[in-house]
This record gives sequence, structure tokens and C-alpha cells, in this order.
Amino acid sequence: MTENNGYMHWLRERIEKEGRYLGNGILKVDVFLNHQVDPLLMQGIGYEFARRFRAQDPTKILTAETSGIAPALAAGMMLQVPVVFARKSKPLTLSHEPYQADAPSHTKGGHVTLMVSHEFLSPGERVLIIDDFLASTLTIRALANIVEQSGATLVGIGAVIEKAFEGGRGKLRDLNVQVESLAVIERFEGDKIIFAE
Amino acid sequence: MTENNGYMHWLRERIEKEGRYLGNGILKVDVFLNHQVDPLLMQGIGYEFARRFRAQDPTKILTAETSGIAPALAAGMMLQVPVVFARKSKPLTLSHEPYQADAPSHTKGGHVTLMVSHEFLSPGERVLIIDDFLASTLTIRALANIVEQSGATLVGIGAVIEKAFEGGRGKLRDLNVQVESLAVIERFEGDKIIFAE
Repeated sequence: MTENNGYMHWLRERIEKEGRYLGNGILKVDVFLNHQVDPLLMQGIGYEFARRFRAQDPTKILTAETSGIAPALAAGMMLQVPVVFARKSKPLTLSHEPYQADAPSHTKGGHVTLMVSHEFLSPGERVLIIDDFLASTLTIRALANIVEQSGATLVGIGAVIEKAFEGGRGKLRDLNVQVESLAVIERFEGDKIIFAE
Repeated sequence: MTENNGYMHWLRERIEKEGRYLGNGILKVDVFLNHQVDPLLMQGIGYEFARRFRAQDPTKILTAETSGIAPALAAGMMLQVPVVFARKSKPLTLSHEPYQADAPSHTKGGHVTLMVSHEFLSPGERVLIIDDFLASTLTIRALANIVEQSGATLVGIGAVIEKAFEGGRGKLRDLNVQVESLAVIERFEGDKIIFAE
């Protein structure tokens, strides 16, 4: 266990005890992360993101609805910076043409369009992207694309769980920012979850 | 200002300063509540929900994605109880037939089906429903319906902002539970927001 993830051994424990591998690379963690949320775990996650990214001096956190909201808000509470969640469908109150980027839909198949109102991202902002999973990176890249459109500066990418076997970290290298995952899954063996050391 | 909402005068101030009335009963508060989230305000909201509902001894908080998640999580952090958010589309990890109830869609028109996995609500649980708005009450009633299906006990309903002119509170009377809104808007006059005392 490296210094870097020492604090998060309890996240690993929760994944091991309560996560369930459904095959095809799909990990079910809806007991504490993306359908039911454990607030104490989430506070720990927020604390850890804040510890790792504070030096980047983020002024805003960006995530995508729905499952990114809880970890992003927890991090925003610790860093005391506003949290913006990209919308997947246009609310009545989003009147003008927002920043847009396409991302895959995890529930409907196909893709969804992520939207962020112009008023919430501007040049001069330092944006930290937080999401629940780092896997295909397509959602994260869509968020990074929105940051770029806005003229703001991307300063980091944080995920609660990384599926290293999908090679996402390499795919983010060109963005040239700090990337942090709080638990890194190297692979599955049967229904056993193997973490990277 | 009554004792009951004394703590939340700053929520009113935020609504007055940063909210924008778009006509047709639609209040735009996406600067701090449902597109961008102010974490400090959200912590205050969580504190206030906890203060008002602690005596009901809730064991779980239930909300609907997307905009209910932040206030529900903030309340969950203060009360240290798990937060369940009803899904509007079925994730891959939601394999069995969930509890379901129809609610209106605020973004797409028509309606959406709210879904909660059976494993997260059971008889014996004491459920507090938290949402961003108390208005038509159709979403809140859908959540209450899901609580009923599960055999759990509904112990309270909390909303950040109530649009009193939609008469929602009366529509919830038959549920016979404590209903609390942190800011109650009586009506709009032109673009001015009139709060109930």
C-alpha cells in the first residue's frame, strides 16, 4: 500500500465486501456509490480528493449527472469550491445554447449529450473533473472538451474507482494533468476483485 | 421571521439575489441549487433538515435524481444515514424488477419512471424524502408511493424551496407526516419573489 492510497484502504474494503462483479467488466457498487450513497464514505472520498488536488488550486469542480454528483459535492465541500454538474437533458431553466459534448449512455445505450451553461465556466477558472468511474474515459473526455470550449483551465481529473484494465489512464495522458483514482482495480479473477498495489 | 426558518434567511437572500423568475411559475436557481451547487449553502441546508427531522429518527433518506441528490446527501451527512436516489433510467447494475412509480419529467415533458432497487428499502426503515422543490408534489408522491410499496415507514418530507402557490402542502396532507420547506415562496409579483412569513 503506497502512501498515496493509504487513507483509502476502507474504500477498497467496501468494494471487496459490498461490490459485486457482474461480468463483462461491470462492477456493481450501488450499495454505497451510485444508487444508495454512504455519506460517511463520501465524506472520506471528498477529504481524499481535496488532499490530492488542493495544490492545483481548483476554483470549480465539474462532474456529470447522476453518479458523479455525490463524490463531486463531497470534494467541493472539502475544497469549498462550487460544483457544476453537466446535464444530460435540457432543463427548462437552461435557455441559451450551452456548451455541449457527447458521452456514452450507461443506461440507455447509445450516447447522451452533456450540457453546461455558459455562465458556470469561464476563462480564468481552474477546473477539477470528478467522476465515479475512470474506465473508458469517454465521459471524462466529454467533460474535458466542455472545459476547453469554455476557455477555462483543466487542472486535474479524479475518479473514485479506476478500472485499469480498460486503459483509461493512458488515454488521458495527452491532457497533461494530474489524474487520481482512489481505488484502482487491475482485473477481475472469477468474481474476485484484484486491486493494483 | 419565525424561529423555524430563522436559520435559513441566507437561503432566502440567495434566492432573492441569484434566483430569476422566468414566468409561468418557473424559478431559475441553477446558480446554487440544480446545475451549479454551492457546497457551503448545501451544508447549511443539510444542517437545517437534520435539525428539523432528527426527532423523526429517519434511518434512510430518499430522493430522485438529479437535483435532489445534493440536498439529500447534505442531509444524509448531517444525520449520518444512507441516501438512496431513485433512478430515472435503468442502470445495467439494476438487474431485478425495482420498485417503480411514475413522475412528471421536468426536462423532457411527459413522464419518467422512478426506480428504486428492492435491496435499499425494506419494512422497518424510517424514510425521510428530500427534494429540491415542493410544487406540484407529483415527484414527491411518486417517492412516497415507492416507500409504501417497500413496506417502509415514511416519516417526513423536506424540500429546499416550496412554491406555495401550487398548493403542494395541502396535497400532501393525507400522508400525515411532517412536511418542511426551508424557503416558502408565496407568489411572484412581476419579477419580484414574495416569501411567506
